[in-house]
Amino acid sequence: MADTLLDELFTWLRIPSISTGGGDPADLERAAQWAVDKVRAAGGEAELVRIGGGNPLVIGELRAAREDAPTVLIYGHYDVQGAEPLDLWESPPFEPEVRDGRVYARGAADDKGNFLPLLHAACGLAQAGELPVHVRVAIEGEEEAGGESIAAWLAADERGADAAIVYDSGMVGPDLPAICVGLRGVVLLTFEVRAARRDLHSGMYGGSALNSLHALHAALAAVLPGPDGRVRDELRVGIAPVADAERATWDALPSGQEALDAAGARPAYPAAAAEYIERNGSDTAVDVNQIVAGDARTVIPAVARATISIRLAPGQDPDAMGAELLRLLRGGLPEGAELEVVSSHSAQPALFGVDTAAIRLAGEAIERACGVAPAFVRSGGSIPIVADLGAKGIPTIVTGFVLPDDPFHAPNESFSLRGLELGERAARELLAALAALGDGAPQ
Amino acid sequence: MADTLLDELFTWLRIPSISTGGGDPADLERAAQWAVDKVRAAGGEAELVRIGGGNPLVIGELRAAREDAPTVLIYGHYDVQGAEPLDLWESPPFEPEVRDGRVYARGAADDKGNFLPLLHAACGLAQAGELPVHVRVAIEGEEEAGGESIAAWLAADERGADAAIVYDSGMVGPDLPAICVGLRGVVLLTFEVRAARRDLHSGMYGGSALNSLHALHAALAAVLPGPDGRVRDELRVGIAPVADAERATWDALPSGQEALDAAGARPAYPAAAAEYIERNGSDTAVDVNQIVAGDARTVIPAVARATISIRLAPGQDPDAMGAELLRLLRGGLPEGAELEVVSSHSAQPALFGVDTAAIRLAGEAIERACGVAPAFVRSGGSIPIVADLGAKGIPTIVTGFVLPDDPFHAPNESFSLRGLELGERAARELLAALAALGDGAPQ
Repeated sequence: MADTLLDELFTWLRIPSISTGGGDPADLERAAQWAVDKVRAAGGEAELVRIGGGNPLVIGELRAAREDAPTVLIYGHYDVQGAEPLDLWESPPFEPEVRDGRVYARGAADDKGNFLPLLHAACGLAQAGELPVHVRVAIEGEEEAGGESIAAWLAADERGADAAIVYDSGMVGPDLPAICVGLRGVVLLTFEVRAARRDLHSGMYGGSALNSLHALHAALAAVLPGPDGRVRDELRVGIAPVADAERATWDALPSGQEALDAAGARPAYPAAAAEYIERNGSDTAVDVNQIVAGDARTVIPAVARATISIRLAPGQDPDAMGAELLRLLRGGLPEGAELEVVSSHSAQPALFGVDTAAIRLAGEAIERACGVAPAFVRSGGSIPIVADLGAKGIPTIVTGFVLPDDPFHAPNESFSLRGLELGERAARELLAALAALGDGAPQ
Repeated sequence: MADTLLDELFTWLRIPSISTGGGDPADLERAAQWAVDKVRAAGGEAELVRIGGGNPLVIGELRAAREDAPTVLIYGHYDVQGAEPLDLWESPPFEPEVRDGRVYARGAADDKGNFLPLLHAACGLAQAGELPVHVRVAIEGEEEAGGESIAAWLAADERGADAAIVYDSGMVGPDLPAICVGLRGVVLLTFEVRAARRDLHSGMYGGSALNSLHALHAALAAVLPGPDGRVRDELRVGIAPVADAERATWDALPSGQEALDAAGARPAYPAAAAEYIERNGSDTAVDVNQIVAGDARTVIPAVARATISIRLAPGQDPDAMGAELLRLLRGGLPEGAELEVVSSHSAQPALFGVDTAAIRLAGEAIERACGVAPAFVRSGGSIPIVADLGAKGIPTIVTGFVLPDDPFHAPNESFSLRGLELGERAARELLAALAALGDGAPQ
């Protein structure tokens, strides 16, 4: 690894580009401008793009040596979360420091340190006149705070790309890189159940008057998983099967019990730990996220408010499953109770098949860079920008070199020097490999 | 009715003896002292008794003409609730006014106007040397605010009484007086269910990790009434049967549908309105009063807090039913979840049988005063002082002459002039009738 990558990373990390409150807009702009300058210094074009009142996007392009090369979009984000509580940091969060082979700073892993090797490799190749693909650059400053600008930019963008590379995830372990090929979608629904005109005295009416929390209990009984932890079939419609080539890589992943233990979680039912990988990546889950109702005294609450979410497996349709969720909830209500939707939000799931050209080429490229074939993993959560890329038909390689013990969003966030090195090497291999997309390889 | 009763009531109502916050302790003392002076003026003994930092109790006694007469305790309260919102009052709450045959003021119904006819009758008879029973007077100033002083006084009192009269309830309607012979008890339990060390991301762990709200749902399923609205038998142990003579008076009561409609309530299940009187007075009810957990976003909440209460029918044991409730809740929890009790509180139910001497004599006395036999009703709520009297073996006549359309605890609280008149007449009949308790009448 050239020292310039580490030097540049230190410079970028020193800018406290916090987007989650308490940050200075000037710092966000400085961090964005730093990336613009880097692309321009490599001979590319780049500019700050502001959409509405959002933080500036960095939108740029580095042209390939061959004009007819395919186009690859690279994505990262320059914004970081706040660094509180500051007293838990061993070194100040915006004064990066290397200790024991790791860079410590806010943003070291998420996402400046993870993403910079990709940008750096593209710029280096461009400067040397050796860039094998056209590289479009899109770096946002709101990833930790909603990401509305990048979504709007992507929705309006007509050029597209032949593939995208997103360095915002991590390795399974120090010796096993990963490509995240699937993301769950989500439907998040907040609603109120009403059972009376006003709260009632439980002495006067207890046993005779409908209680909104009892009505909510009945509604939830219609959608909560049974004792085997399985969500009912009406909410599992459309789930895409897992390809054998993908499943074959799961044996190398840590066990579900390890994943749950590390999070302080307990299995939802006895077999849930053993089924963790499958359930997390390729099955539907229902969770009640919040209930707020009543008072800690003898009232019969008239109204109960709840938030419930379904995580959707790749292949499922948020609109259809959201409507089915609501139908089931309403169907479970006792006579006399009403359900009113307060708000709802949804995000598409995404799946980039392991047999598509871009993912196959990416897997081979990462194997060349790391000496080991990557695991094909899935994320149980949703990454809106990736789902949006998928919805535009752009095959997207979601990877990165964060290690499981690099704390994200926490004090003493870190990123390994080896991750920087692997990240840059893998970026060069990926850009080279994806040049084949222009050769009429099957997509 | 002598004008003095109305004059005296006006004087007492003008003292804003608010115990629910915002009141002046001096006013509470003035209202108490007013009652002390009244008892003393009738030749009785009375004093202010303070227990801890509580509002003063009025404790006094009026002696019967015959030294060997039985003893009757009369109970009322001089404290009132705050009068907000003041702008909804047609006349100021502490400037009593008669309009259309009703006294309007805070405390007109609850409890100064309801109770004073009883005290006034006893004082009048004592002054005339005609008091048929010894009358012990206990008037509290914390009924709207916990009632700890009167409970402590009663617990320490060794003299007791042959019967008690409590004027703090009302008539079924203008032409139908009532004696409340049963009160439900209550167990109120606040607990927490824990399912993980900390809140988890529902994308990462949804479907695999135990959710505290799902664990709570399973625990509640073990104690909530089924679709027929019936609480499970383990929680209905000990319910005393309803005497035929009591049930016979229920036909004259308003229908359950009317009671629910007036409160803005909907039936807990289709037949609940028709069963209202029975369910409210002589059956167990379970209500979830509060649930607080989670966040309106995609989290799996680690801890859910709930408050649940059982209303206990007369005959049931709060300790036994509280323990059973907890056992059932814990039995419903899925593996991995824990339940911890945060707080619990209970109150005894009470039942004064319609076939006991005091209640029989009281029924006859009220019939003489009103020209119609009273209905024997029950309260679904608990009145701690009455349960405490019952627990001491003192048969207690809970009655009063508030009408259903005299708003309690609300603006424009009122009490009818006819209620004052009936109250005083009934008090004289009750005191006369209860003299028979000294004749060896069956208790």
